[in-house]
Amino acid sequence: MSFQEIFALHPRPTALDPKTVLRCIEECLDCAASCTACADASLSESDSQRLLRVVRLTSDCADVCDATARVVTRQTASDLGVIRATIEACAAACVACAEECERHAAHHEHCRLCAEVCRRCKKACDELLHAIG
Amino acid sequence: MSFQEIFALHPRPTALDPKTVLRCIEECLDCAASCTACADASLSESDSQRLLRVVRLTSDCADVCDATARVVTRQTASDLGVIRATIEACAAACVACAEECERHAAHHEHCRLCAEVCRRCKKACDELLHAIG
Amino acid sequence: MSFQEIFALHPRPTALDPKTVLRCIEECLDCAASCTACADASLSESDSQRLLRVVRLTSDCADVCDATARVVTRQTASDLGVIRATIEACAAACVACAEECERHAAHHEHCRLCAEVCRRCKKACDELLHAIG
Amino acid sequence: MSFQEIFALHPRPTALDPKTVLRCIEECLDCAASCTACADASLSESDSQRLLRVVRLTSDCADVCDATARVVTRQTASDLGVIRATIEACAAACVACAEECERHAAHHEHCRLCAEVCRRCKKACDELLHAIG
Repeated sequence: MSFQEIFALHPRPTALDPKTVLRCIEECLDCAASCTACADASLSESDSQRLLRVVRLTSDCADVCDATARVVTRQTASDLGVIRATIEACAAACVACAEECERHAAHHEHCRLCAEVCRRCKKACDELLHAIG
Repeated sequence: MSFQEIFALHPRPTALDPKTVLRCIEECLDCAASCTACADASLSESDSQRLLRVVRLTSDCADVCDATARVVTRQTASDLGVIRATIEACAAACVACAEECERHAAHHEHCRLCAEVCRRCKKACDELLHAIG
Repeated sequence: MSFQEIFALHPRPTALDPKTVLRCIEECLDCAASCTACADASLSESDSQRLLRVVRLTSDCADVCDATARVVTRQTASDLGVIRATIEACAAACVACAEECERHAAHHEHCRLCAEVCRRCKKACDELLHAIG
Repeated sequence: MSFQEIFALHPRPTALDPKTVLRCIEECLDCAASCTACADASLSESDSQRLLRVVRLTSDCADVCDATARVVTRQTASDLGVIRATIEACAAACVACAEECERHAAHHEHCRLCAEVCRRCKKACDELLHAIG
C-alpha cells in the first residue's frame, strides 16, 4: 500500500514512533474492511438469526475503526487527548467484536478470521496508547 | 427529520431513555456536518494558515461524530461498553474542537457557531453517558 | 441545525443556489441516519430473513449518502464533475433502497418511512443535478 | 490483510470475478488512506495556500473511496445499478484528484505518490465496471 510512504513524507511529523502509528492505521483499515465483510457474510448465512450480535458489533467496529484510521493518520496540529480517546473507543469495539465472533468461530470461518483481526487491531491500539503515554 | 420516527419503531428497543439517545444522535449529526462545513470555510479564509488547528480538529470531530451517530443509533444487541467508549471519544473530540474554534470566534463567525454546536454535542454526550451509568 | 448557517458563511461560496444545495445536504443527512436506523430495526424483526435486501440496500444507501453530504457541503475549489457523479450515485442508491423498502411497507412502518425519506433524497439530488446542469 | 480471505468465505458470493472485485476494494482502501494522508501533509506545507484544491479533492476522494470500498465489499442481495453508479463516482473522484496532485508532483512527493494511487484506483474501478458490463 502507498499510504505508508505518503504518511512518512509529512513535513511536520508528530513525535510518536512512526512504526507504531502505521501499525495501528494498517490494522484499523484491515479490521474495518474485515468487519464489513463479516457482517455481510453473516447476513447471508442460513443461521443468520443467531448472528445478529455479530452483525451489530462488526458494523460498530467497522465505523469506529474507519474513524480511528483517519484520526491517527493526521499529523497536523495533533491533540493527543482526542487521539487517545479515539483509540480507546477502537480498542473497546475490537474486544467486544472479537469476543462475539469467537463464539461462532467453530461454525463460521469468517467469524474466526474476523476475531483474529480484531485481536490484532486491539493489540496495535494498545501499543500506540502505550507510546502516547 | 424522519430518522427519529424510524428509531422509535425498533421492534426491540434498548432500555435507555429514547429522548436522551435521540438528542445525542441529532447533535452528532449536526456537529459532524457543521465541522465539515467549518473545516472547508476555514480552508478558504485569507488567514487559513492560522486556522490549521481548526481544520485538523474539525476534521477529526466530523469523523468521530459520524461514527458515534451510527453506533448510538443501533439498538440491536447493544454492548454498553462499546457505546460508552465511543461517546467518550466523541465528547473528547467535541471539547478539543470547541476550544480551538473559540480562539477564532471573534474573527470568524463560522468558528463561533461551530464551537457552539460542539459544546451542545458534548453536553448531549455527557447526558447519555450519565443515563448509561 | 447549525450547519446551514455555517455553510452560508463560506468566504468563497460556489455559484450554485444555496437553497438547492442545502436541501440536498439535509436530505442526505436524514436519509443516511434513517437508513442506519431501518437496517438495524430490520435486523431485529422476527422476519428478518425476508429483509436481507433491505438491510443490504439501506447499508449501501447510508454509506453513499454520508459521503455525498460531505462532498456537497464543501465549497472550496469545487469540481462539478466529482460532485455530479457523487450525487448520481446517491440518487441510484436512494431509488434502489426506496423500491425495496416499499415492498415491505405494509408490514413494517420503518420500511415505509425509510422509503419516503429515500424518495425525498432522490428528488433533492435530482434538483441539484438540474441546477449543476 | 485478512479481509480478502473473509470476503472469499461469503456463503452466497456474487457472480463477479472475485479477483477483480478484491483488486477494486484494495485500491479503494489504499486510495482513501493515501488521500487522507496527502490532505493532511498538504495542510502543513509552507505553500499550503497553493494546495487548497489538493486538500479539497483528496478529502472528497477519501470519502467516496471509503463508501465505495464498503458497497463493493458487500455481496448479499447485490444491486448492480447501485454498485455501478458508486464505482463511477469513485472513478470520477480519483481522476480529478490525480490531475490536481500531478500539478504539484514536482514539488511535493506526497502529491506525486497520491496521484499514482488515484490512477491505480481509477484503473481498478474501470476494470470492475467492465466486468459488471
